Order: sequence, then C-alpha cells, then structure tokens
Amino acid sequence: MQDLIFTNQVAERLGELLAPLRSTGVFFLADDNTAEIVKQLGGDPIVIPAGDVNKGLESLAKVWSALSASGTRASTLVNVGGGMVTDLGGFAAATFKRGIRFFNVPTTLLGAVDAAVGGKTGVNFGGLKNEIGAFREAEAVIISTQFFATLPDRELRSGFAEMLKHGLLDSPEAYHQLLAFPLAEAKRDLDALLPLLETSVEVKRRIVAADPLEKGLRKALNLGHTSGHALESLAMEHGCPMPHGYAVAYGLLIELLLSHLQLGFPTAEIYPLAALLRENYADVALPECKDYDRLIELMAHDKKNRRPDEINFTLLTAPGQIELDQIVSPEQIRTALDLARDLTCG
Amino acid sequence: MQDLIFTNQVAERLGELLAPLRSTGVFFLADDNTAEIVKQLGGDPIVIPAGDVNKGLESLAKVWSALSASGTRASTLVNVGGGMVTDLGGFAAATFKRGIRFFNVPTTLLGAVDAAVGGKTGVNFGGLKNEIGAFREAEAVIISTQFFATLPDRELRSGFAEMLKHGLLDSPEAYHQLLAFPLAEAKRDLDALLPLLETSVEVKRRIVAADPLEKGLRKALNLGHTSGHALESLAMEHGCPMPHGYAVAYGLLIELLLSHLQLGFPTAEIYPLAALLRENYADVALPECKDYDRLIELMAHDKKNRRPDEINFTLLTAPGQIELDQIVSPEQIRTALDLARDLTCG
Repeated sequence: MQDLIFTNQVAERLGELLAPLRSTGVFFLADDNTAEIVKQLGGDPIVIPAGDVNKGLESLAKVWSALSASGTRASTLVNVGGGMVTDLGGFAAATFKRGIRFFNVPTTLLGAVDAAVGGKTGVNFGGLKNEIGAFREAEAVIISTQFFATLPDRELRSGFAEMLKHGLLDSPEAYHQLLAFPLAEAKRDLDALLPLLETSVEVKRRIVAADPLEKGLRKALNLGHTSGHALESLAMEHGCPMPHGYAVAYGLLIELLLSHLQLGFPTAEIYPLAALLRENYADVALPECKDYDRLIELMAHDKKNRRPDEINFTLLTAPGQIELDQIVSPEQIRTALDLARDLTCG
Repeated sequence: MQDLIFTNQVAERLGELLAPLRSTGVFFLADDNTAEIVKQLGGDPIVIPAGDVNKGLESLAKVWSALSASGTRASTLVNVGGGMVTDLGGFAAATFKRGIRFFNVPTTLLGAVDAAVGGKTGVNFGGLKNEIGAFREAEAVIISTQFFATLPDRELRSGFAEMLKHGLLDSPEAYHQLLAFPLAEAKRDLDALLPLLETSVEVKRRIVAADPLEKGLRKALNLGHTSGHALESLAMEHGCPMPHGYAVAYGLLIELLLSHLQLGFPTAEIYPLAALLRENYADVALPECKDYDRLIELMAHDKKNRRPDEINFTLLTAPGQIELDQIVSPEQIRTALDLARDLTCG
C-alpha cells in the first residue's frame, strides 16, 4: 500500500522520502501550470502541455524520451500536477524500462481526492479517456492544501464532486456533511476542507485496498463515472471540454436518478444534490435531447462493460448501500437524463 | 504462474482454453509471416509488419486501435508469432483498458524458448530495445514444434542460442548435451530437439518463478544479453539488423570470456562454444575494433545497470555457477571482444 502523506511541508517531506532511495536520477514531471511549483521544490521538470486533450501518446512519448535520455531502472519520477499529470506520469513510470518508482504530488483538489490515490494510471487514446493504462501505485502521495489557495473556483468544485461521490458511497452522515459544506467559499476556508478531504481519501483508500484490481467492490468508485465519462467525451467531441469533476457531479445526479428508478433510492436524498448543482455547477449544462443517442453510445463504450450491448452502472439503494453491476436500459437512461435536466435547469 | 502447454494440436487446445472464458471478443495478433497460421487456426488476425524494426509505437498503436474498436475488458488477445509479436502483443494486452487476458502461441524456436515465457512484454523506443514495457504473464503459452519445420535455419540457430544460455545457467550436463546436438540438422530432427526444448523452458520457468520482477536471481537470464543487446543495437545503427539469437550467441561467448577474465571460468568450456559459433553462426560477424567504443556505450545503456557509468553483467564461475551484478571495466570488455573475434574468425 502506498504511503499517503498530508503535509504543508512538501519540499522537506519529499526530500526525506527520496534520500534513502539513492536513485540514479530524480526526474520531475509537470505541466505548464505546475512547472513553477517544481522549480520552487528545487527540481527542473519535464514539462508537458496542460489539459486533458494533451493526455495522449504525444505527451507520453515526450516523457519516455526524457526518461530514456539519462534514466535507469533505479531512477525515480515525481509527478507534480493535477490528475492529468499524475495519470500520465504514473503510466510513463509504470512502463519505462518495465517500471520505475514514482511519487505523486497532486496540486489540485481533484487530483488529491481522486487521481493520485488508487494506482490507476493511463492516457487517452482514440478519443477515449484512459483507454490505455496500467494499475500501478506510487511509492507515496504527498497531499498538501498549500496548492489549492490559488486554484480557480471551478477546479475546487471539480474536486468536490469526487468528495460527494465518496460521501455517497460511505454513509448518509458523510454525504450530509458534504452537502452542508459552504462550497462557494471553499477557498477561503481550506482549513475546514482539510478534514473532509482526509475522510474522503480514506473512503477511496479503503475501497481500493479491498479490491486493488477492480474485480469487485472497487467498481463502486465508478459511481457517477459511467455517465460522467460519457458527458466528458461528448463535450470533447463538441470541441468544448467539460471539467472532469463537473462531469462527475452531473453523472452522480444522473446515476442517483437511475438508482431511484431501478432500486428506489429515496428522492429526498437527490433534491439537495440537485440544489447544490444548480447553485455551484450551473456554468456547465447537461446535453440536449438530440445528443442522448450519442451519449448512450459513449456509455456503452465504458471499459467497465462486460458486453458491448450492455450498460453497466454502480447504483445505490441509499447513501452507503452499494449495488454493483446494475444493467440499465437506454430508456431508463433517457428518463434519468430528462429528470436531471429538469432538476438542474434554472 | 502461467500454463505452459506442449502440444501439436494447437487449434484444439486453444479452443479448450478459450471456451470457459466467455470473452467478449477474441482477437488474434499476427505479423506478415504468421497471418496465415492464424487463419488456419480459424481466426482473422490484426496484422502488423514483421521484423524487429516494426516493434515500436506505430505497430502498438495499430493494435490498440483494433482492440479499442470493439474490445472490452473481458476481451482476450491471442498472440501468434515470434518474440516480436508476443512481446508487442503482450504489452498491448497489458495496457489496453489497463489490462486484458492474453495467450501466446510462439511460432519460432526463439519465441518458444525465450520470449513467450517470463512475463516480459514491451516495445522498442528511441532506438533502444524493449525500452518501454511491462511485466505481465500470458494466461497460457502453447508451444508446438509443428511451426518450426518451415522456419529458416537462421531462426533455429537463433533459438538455439537461448537454449545454450539456459544450459550454461543450469549445469555442465545440460550445457554439454546442447553442445553435442547436431544443430546443422535440427530441422530434420525436431523430435530430438523437443526434449531439449522442454528442459530449456523449464530452466527459465524455474528462474522466473523464483524472482518474477527481476530483483535478483532473474538477472541470471541476462547472461549473454548485455553484450547481445548492444550488438543488436549497433547492427541496427549500421542499417543491417542482426538476429536476436545470433547476438545472444556472440554475447554468450563475450560474457564467458569476461567470466574467464574476471572469475576464472575455465577456457575448456569456452572453446567448444567458439567452435559451434564458427560452424553455425559464421554468416554474421562481430564488430570491428573501430566500433568498440560505441558498443561499450550501448552496453552502458542497458536497463539492468543501476548507474549510468557502470556496466553490469551476469557472469559464471563455471556452467551452473552464477554470479550476479558483476561490474566490468571497458578495458576488460575490449579484451573480451578481441578474444571473441580471434576465436570465431576464419
């Protein structure tokens, strides 16, 4: 199990972690947004262009080339950035000379709560998200709130969506605690966010530990993501990328509605989420009816599906009550999409 | 541990292995040389161009694309070909949707004895062999001599070099048995080759089982390969590729000479190998003195080296007596190269 370190002394802790390894070469990976952070940590990063559209083979080849120029099997890679950097850097490290050590330093809330923990690495391919990748854990993940103060509000809301997912998977209490958090002011209250973040990461860690290779329980973490990934892919096709966390936020609403339709998940637990979306996520909208067919096609492409003609969801009977491998019909998805649009529009 | 199946009923055995998996889609991978074999097995293969120069990102992307078009996590890939196909196909399977099942059907002696067993997958990158890859075992490897009858003699000699390596790692008896085999007539006597092949694969399997991730003993399998890979890379730079097994055959001679210089490996065990090379591998020659510097540079690039300025070999004090992690100086390498040239010339 990888170490998970909450600290605001990143440079110091990283130094302590790297020293005993005696690596032949410590490489840093950053994107345009985080190159400066690496320099402050004392490193000279490999820099890839920021943004999910750059999470592909071209950036990957750039990282492999840089590692190949002077790296050995005993080299170490430190990924400093959002989920795009930790996913791509993790995959580069997992495959360079058949695997070198790596550390993750997530600089976004989304990265901290989700991407940096759990061993999923990968890149997009052929327009599909994370189509190519590997399961490989970092040696350690260093999580610091010091990077979040300068993040755009949009990014904080993205990360918060993953926290909502963990709350829903955990218990009514964890879910209600998050619903009560004043999200609009998160940046001004990072201290209040921190304990919620630690709890949230712990939920994910517990689930991953129980099922590292996603054979069973780990599929629970897919809540909100079958719809969410499809929303992201559709937005990308329209040339107007949707932040991952926004897609997850709307994906959660859609899948709670599916949970209601299929398993009787109580609507009283859905309305507050819809309200939270209306208040905080209204700068992105759900697709219109004419796009439903394509959206459902994209859901059918999700890598969790066992058969190409079945769409497989993680659903809930109540917060904390998980039902894996729920097959849902296209008609139910259409209904849920209509309801989600009604609940979040104006 | 992956299953290892020696059979001459490949189609039948493969069918039995695939049936209980209920895969959503069985894909076959072949190169130009083996596409026909797949068709005889009843499959419609993804075909990549043959040859080690095509074991790169371009072919890999082609395989990923084909898998992505209709594959799911529950799909299965069957790699039918030499080491190039099983290495590349294994890596494609290890990374498509973070890993799907795969089977290897080696169609060359080299592939059977070496590449298809041991979980090393990968592709060349930036002119370096297997620079990108993963450790991932096939579900099963199906080994049949039925494919070898039509192989060029050159390929049989290539595969035999890996068998010699396993013999040297195992015991004087195993090594001497191989030296006594009438290699020039191997194709006419596949029945006599078969038991030697089974023994040889067993040596490798035993070593890999003891150390799947190459932390220790498995480095023994590197015998002949630090020099061999460098010979191959140099030949590729000269635009005149050297078959892997030939490179290993010469690599073994070079490293037995290094073993002699450094650890007193008996010369009486070296001369018969040199004679075997003169008789069977003379259609390829060792590099000339002017290329030694570049050759040593390439050895220094080997992924087993912990430090970029040290060259690390597996050496022997006698057949079956393995010494890992031997640091050798460039001067000793020059001496060994001179001796190897003397012993194999004319």
